[in-house]
Amino acid sequence: MSLLPKQIQTAIDEFSKLPGIGPKSAERLTFHLLRSSKSSPERLGTALGQLKQHLGYCTVCQMVVAGEGKCTICTSRERNQEQILVVEEPLEVIAFEKSGYKGLYHVLHGVLSPIDGMGPEQLKLKELIDRCTAGNIAEVIIATNLDVEGEATANYIKEKIKGTVPTITRIAHGLPRGADIEFADQVTLREAVAGRRKA
Amino acid sequence: MSLLPKQIQTAIDEFSKLPGIGPKSAERLTFHLLRSSKSSPERLGTALGQLKQHLGYCTVCQMVVAGEGKCTICTSRERNQEQILVVEEPLEVIAFEKSGYKGLYHVLHGVLSPIDGMGPEQLKLKELIDRCTAGNIAEVIIATNLDVEGEATANYIKEKIKGTVPTITRIAHGLPRGADIEFADQVTLREAVAGRRKA
Repeated sequence: MSLLPKQIQTAIDEFSKLPGIGPKSAERLTFHLLRSSKSSPERLGTALGQLKQHLGYCTVCQMVVAGEGKCTICTSRERNQEQILVVEEPLEVIAFEKSGYKGLYHVLHGVLSPIDGMGPEQLKLKELIDRCTAGNIAEVIIATNLDVEGEATANYIKEKIKGTVPTITRIAHGLPRGADIEFADQVTLREAVAGRRKA
Repeated sequence: MSLLPKQIQTAIDEFSKLPGIGPKSAERLTFHLLRSSKSSPERLGTALGQLKQHLGYCTVCQMVVAGEGKCTICTSRERNQEQILVVEEPLEVIAFEKSGYKGLYHVLHGVLSPIDGMGPEQLKLKELIDRCTAGNIAEVIIATNLDVEGEATANYIKEKIKGTVPTITRIAHGLPRGADIEFADQVTLREAVAGRRKA
């Protein structure tokens, strides 16, 4: 039997399930929320409760959006509408945005990984192929991670869209192999886009 | 303007306010919750929303309890009812419990710190003095942290309860100076209790 009240233990247990948060950190976070005036458990609780509400995907690039329709990047007139940068996850869009990239995106929401049950049908691949076959795209830059699954996915995408777009490129090996795009610095990401090669 | 939907940005912002969680970690945690099947934002959200509900203090030792009344330690017949170990925070009770301590506790809920506006009135000090003057207590072990505020608080408590209890002790300097009790290992905590000296 726990010495702590049930609601405190429940919060600690739920925090412990998050990546990088062990039981001690979970205790600290919970008691911090109980005491803090800056953040409150209710505010974070409400935010998390509403996290998945009215959350949708951009009908074009599959980026997460509030509600329905297109995202602000796909509707922007200032973007290069002929360039699509393909990423695995929504956070990678944010990372490339900070690097100064000015084209469009396509979010796969995963990567080919048979062990995890991730096949082509689990990814937003059909939507990418549709965009390519619809025409008007000059270049697809494949920016999946530079690990085994990312490379396999890049090759798969290249085979699928070959012939539908004039140019298919892969981001440069400016990124160290095996690194996570999300954590790369902005200069490295900019160099990786600049040094892209034919896939 | 943020590229991310408002509810995602709100969750990231709230996570970022927590100690030890930077903006990148906050993003990771939020997207982990969006994808994960093991933990869900709704479960953590509900847990945090209910965190402060029906939360009270043990009427004797001031430990956090669900609802009202006494905690399980104060009502246990297997504890040494003549020994009180005084700690700053509820989590330190858990730490001493794991170290094998078998007496009672008193939680101050803070430490004397004039800069932070923490005076004797802000602590659960009156309740400790009442327990001492009520009699039946053979020893008070002062286990505030071994930093400046903790030592000052220990001295203040000693002056206040002097004469009401036969023995007042301070946990031993087995703990490295400036260390946080919460993060000390169980053996060190056990040694600190065993090597206690007269205050």
